[in-house]
Amino acid sequence: MTKTLKQQIIEMAAPDLEKIEKALEDQLDPNTELVRKIASHLLFSGGKRLRPLLMVHSARACGYCTGFEIRFSTIFEYLHAATLLHDDVVDEAQVRRGKKAAHLKWSAPEVVLTGDFLLAKSLEIAAETGEPEIISIIAEITGDMSQGEIDQLSNKGKSDLSEDQYLEIIKKKTAVLIRGACRSGAVLAKAKNRKVHALSEYGFHLGMAFQMADDLLDYTADAQTLGKNPGADLREGKLTLPLIYSLGRASSEDRKWMCHVTQMENFDTEVFKKFKAKLYEYGGIEYTRQKAEDHVKKAKLCLEQFAGTDSGQLLDMIADYSIERKV
Amino acid sequence: MTKTLKQQIIEMAAPDLEKIEKALEDQLDPNTELVRKIASHLLFSGGKRLRPLLMVHSARACGYCTGFEIRFSTIFEYLHAATLLHDDVVDEAQVRRGKKAAHLKWSAPEVVLTGDFLLAKSLEIAAETGEPEIISIIAEITGDMSQGEIDQLSNKGKSDLSEDQYLEIIKKKTAVLIRGACRSGAVLAKAKNRKVHALSEYGFHLGMAFQMADDLLDYTADAQTLGKNPGADLREGKLTLPLIYSLGRASSEDRKWMCHVTQMENFDTEVFKKFKAKLYEYGGIEYTRQKAEDHVKKAKLCLEQFAGTDSGQLLDMIADYSIERKV
Repeated sequence: MTKTLKQQIIEMAAPDLEKIEKALEDQLDPNTELVRKIASHLLFSGGKRLRPLLMVHSARACGYCTGFEIRFSTIFEYLHAATLLHDDVVDEAQVRRGKKAAHLKWSAPEVVLTGDFLLAKSLEIAAETGEPEIISIIAEITGDMSQGEIDQLSNKGKSDLSEDQYLEIIKKKTAVLIRGACRSGAVLAKAKNRKVHALSEYGFHLGMAFQMADDLLDYTADAQTLGKNPGADLREGKLTLPLIYSLGRASSEDRKWMCHVTQMENFDTEVFKKFKAKLYEYGGIEYTRQKAEDHVKKAKLCLEQFAGTDSGQLLDMIADYSIERKV
Repeated sequence: MTKTLKQQIIEMAAPDLEKIEKALEDQLDPNTELVRKIASHLLFSGGKRLRPLLMVHSARACGYCTGFEIRFSTIFEYLHAATLLHDDVVDEAQVRRGKKAAHLKWSAPEVVLTGDFLLAKSLEIAAETGEPEIISIIAEITGDMSQGEIDQLSNKGKSDLSEDQYLEIIKKKTAVLIRGACRSGAVLAKAKNRKVHALSEYGFHLGMAFQMADDLLDYTADAQTLGKNPGADLREGKLTLPLIYSLGRASSEDRKWMCHVTQMENFDTEVFKKFKAKLYEYGGIEYTRQKAEDHVKKAKLCLEQFAGTDSGQLLDMIADYSIERKV
């Protein structure tokens, strides 16, 4: 039987993933049991460790092989977890990684502060790299993500979000962090500008594809595979590309109905099914899939100069996987 | 007429304070109007700019004089503002710097995210120093402060907080940040270890004195001078040293009554007056003042090797001022 792409990636990455997992546990080391509990609830609940893996293999693709890349790669998982904790509080999300969101188990302030703790952890390890550029990258990520979330908050429930505004939001929300992880790997390896740039661009396009795939899955996946109910974005009034594109092409009657649904607090399965059918009918699903594929192609092109290395190959497979995945 | 200590400090520091103010405004530069509004509400509402001033003069006391110390000193005002925004959300504070707390004007999520933005701003400028140790300092501050706040949250309303626990809390809440500002100045100046250590210790003791003075003022100041109602800590169920010490010495009847008051949601002026009288009676006010003075003495001792420099003199005056101030 041919192995799926996912299986191939996991097989190639398994030894690293195990070490990353251990590094995440070893370095967490909070002063209080409560911080450990809240941080662990999210950190050790089956994350894909995509960001650390990207940093590790970006560094190696540039010839870095001291072994420290594992330790340093946790920077981006801690940072990612910090932003997830803050975002979940902000968005009042119900579920994260198949588990109850942290702020439903603990108080919002405790979760916000644990997010701050994880950001501090990320910085602590970043400082150890001795590379101020990695700090600039973290600063840019944190600045972009916080402002992106605020933008998204003020756009909530608006039915006239443009495609450009959507692209700006997902760039800040997802692509800058993934780009930063890849770029930091190259910076850690003290790679030439050309390589740093190529891996940054790879990360950017991968991040864009990844978020578009996520936004598609929120309509197309089934609840069990996804680990949460699909339709979460719609329920939160978040307009994503499948919907934005479809709204632009819908009949005035359908548009009116779709806008009405985006304003609803909740809706039943039948409404969601009908809504989804409209997104297929008006081409929003297909258009988003196409856009995501374009980004994957661009990401893969950036890897040309790393062809022939194991890490280059893995990064290439991850690009393909970003839109093939079911979760 | 002799000038007060405050007047002397302001006179000496005025040109720097003006430049710091301008740097804070110039560098803020957010993408969105909303972030500017929320950040400015706190940042430009009459803060003393103590932390930037300490960094500037710690750097200069070590011979740094490129002029960049002004720009870099904003690191610690942005960081301070970020922690204030998060803390006010966490503590549900009503008033900050004489104005309505930000989360009462905007939503808590918007305020949390603006705090994240300010932290990112602080990091962005810290990365420009090219000194990874300054990043480690920021990481330590952020880690300690978030964990300290969580500790304080879980201790809220407990009437058996020990003096040692209190000291640990104010260290994390206030002293690490002030210590970090002083230490970073010395690191920026690439000072010898001996000087870095001396300025760190100075900052630590100054921070401890400063917070104890703050905790005293919350009982002893009048509302108009303070810019908020005194008794805020008591109302929030926060036990500070004047109360902790007095509880340990009170008659069982008084202790019972005082514990009862700490549990009350609110109380009138008469109750607060009587409560304050107990703190004087059982020596909590005097004991705290004494402890704060001890820290000031220790802080001043650390400055011996900087005697004769203008910056050393200013740091010395700031130490005296930390417990003389009325607000």
